[in-house]
Amino acid sequence: MYDLIIIGAGPAGLSAAVYGKRAGLDLVVIEQTPMSGGQVLNTYEVDNYLGLPGINGFDLGTKFREHTDKMDVTFIKEKVTAIHNNGQTKAVETASGTVYEAKSLILAAGAEHALLQVPGEQEWKGRGVSYCATCDGAFFKGRDVAVVGGGDVAVEDAVYLARMCRKVYLIHRRDSLRAAKILQEKLFACENVEILWNCTVSKIFGNDLVEGVTLCQKQEEQEKDLAVEGVFIAVGMHPCTEAFAGTVACDEKGYLVAGEDCVTDVPGIFAAGDIRTKALRQIVTAVADGACAVSSVERYLTQI
Amino acid sequence: MYDLIIIGAGPAGLSAAVYGKRAGLDLVVIEQTPMSGGQVLNTYEVDNYLGLPGINGFDLGTKFREHTDKMDVTFIKEKVTAIHNNGQTKAVETASGTVYEAKSLILAAGAEHALLQVPGEQEWKGRGVSYCATCDGAFFKGRDVAVVGGGDVAVEDAVYLARMCRKVYLIHRRDSLRAAKILQEKLFACENVEILWNCTVSKIFGNDLVEGVTLCQKQEEQEKDLAVEGVFIAVGMHPCTEAFAGTVACDEKGYLVAGEDCVTDVPGIFAAGDIRTKALRQIVTAVADGACAVSSVERYLTQI
Repeated sequence: MYDLIIIGAGPAGLSAAVYGKRAGLDLVVIEQTPMSGGQVLNTYEVDNYLGLPGINGFDLGTKFREHTDKMDVTFIKEKVTAIHNNGQTKAVETASGTVYEAKSLILAAGAEHALLQVPGEQEWKGRGVSYCATCDGAFFKGRDVAVVGGGDVAVEDAVYLARMCRKVYLIHRRDSLRAAKILQEKLFACENVEILWNCTVSKIFGNDLVEGVTLCQKQEEQEKDLAVEGVFIAVGMHPCTEAFAGTVACDEKGYLVAGEDCVTDVPGIFAAGDIRTKALRQIVTAVADGACAVSSVERYLTQI
Repeated sequence: MYDLIIIGAGPAGLSAAVYGKRAGLDLVVIEQTPMSGGQVLNTYEVDNYLGLPGINGFDLGTKFREHTDKMDVTFIKEKVTAIHNNGQTKAVETASGTVYEAKSLILAAGAEHALLQVPGEQEWKGRGVSYCATCDGAFFKGRDVAVVGGGDVAVEDAVYLARMCRKVYLIHRRDSLRAAKILQEKLFACENVEILWNCTVSKIFGNDLVEGVTLCQKQEEQEKDLAVEGVFIAVGMHPCTEAFAGTVACDEKGYLVAGEDCVTDVPGIFAAGDIRTKALRQIVTAVADGACAVSSVERYLTQI
């Protein structure tokens, strides 16, 4: 019976492990992948985690893991299939059939970007294909880029990129945007944004780095190529909540409902990082969640 | 007329500067001290900012500042005396009489140490009375000192001072410490630390320099003197809101009321870091606030 089980070893889970160890908690981290770091590992360069400018995502993930290793954190490589709230005991079921028990849980399994699922997407991920304009936009200063999508995030990304890129193409499969009106107005006011309506991307191509996308326009037979150096895919995010959704309350998009104190509707179960309802999903906001979640765990443990 | 003025150059302000610059905002940071980093600079060692284990506070503050320098952030060394909300324009008045204008403000002036408010405290400030063990501890090598308080900072200070001082008294008004377990264990392991439970300081006395404190112990009528050459006061924090309190809503402790999105009651004015209402004041939660505040600034700027 542990004091705390942390599920997930991205920035939120690792930060929770560091704070938890410093608080003297008997804890363990369960992570299904062999490498810690979460989405950070797949990021080409991170330049907005204060104190570590211009660091490769893999190196940052490694630094995060090394920090927890200095605190003697135990990691268990297992896929979590379900959690159970048995009052003062929480049970974590894994794919191997093993059940782990703790007084409290921090759910920090993160979220994943929805894929466009076209040829070249995986190949140039981190080398021109990005899922986060805030994270990677600055690397495309003065270049031509494309944003794929038509929702709030896609339009925000296009407006954001328009400030630094030479030209921004917004590629959208329909003839109108789902994004909020106010965002659309802002978009239409950007002189260097061109919207390609009724268009889908059928392929991303390049050499070492992305060089362009192949477009397929509705009611036109011929495909055509568009030269861009960056492709920002903003077609949605999915929180990784399969194992938790029946136990902890979710919002309409599937995120676990919790405020900045990471407290969910189930006493003793906390949600930290990209998996919880929040306005801004960034590495540093996930790391901060790890700290806040442990602070809430400590408060909870003194009460039971 | 700037897009954004950031007031304060601690972790929150510097993080906001990095995010703001990356978002292409025309911004400036106003800070009254010559060194950036805020309270971090006065911290002996920081071991919970994920990715940078066991780093000296001064070095971490320097790394934070270097990160912003890479983004070409402009710093103005001025003391802010007042801010004014003139609708879409915000004005920042400084001690020199200069007025700076921007479309939005991020207030990130942080918090400072609370006073003990006993006779002698002001008189011997800097001559034996200190609020920062890291800054001043070395002056008391081989001497006897007292630390006043029972939270994380007080216990950290006592452990730090125990390494260089002959004897350290921890004076605490209760019979148990609020500090984290792991810190308490560290403290109890120090042979030259003596904890004076249920004790308050009623006076600090001396001649040219501090010579001792007068103690008042619960349930004992007689006060008694304790000979020490240094008194380290670690009894809490006050937010630095003098210049803002009339403009932005504060809570009962004086912190600016804002959620994790850093939105205050005044459109276009945001509060980030230790200065705002929050459960956990840590370096990483301040750095996260910097990111969230800029995100809110961007949303605000698209609406005006």
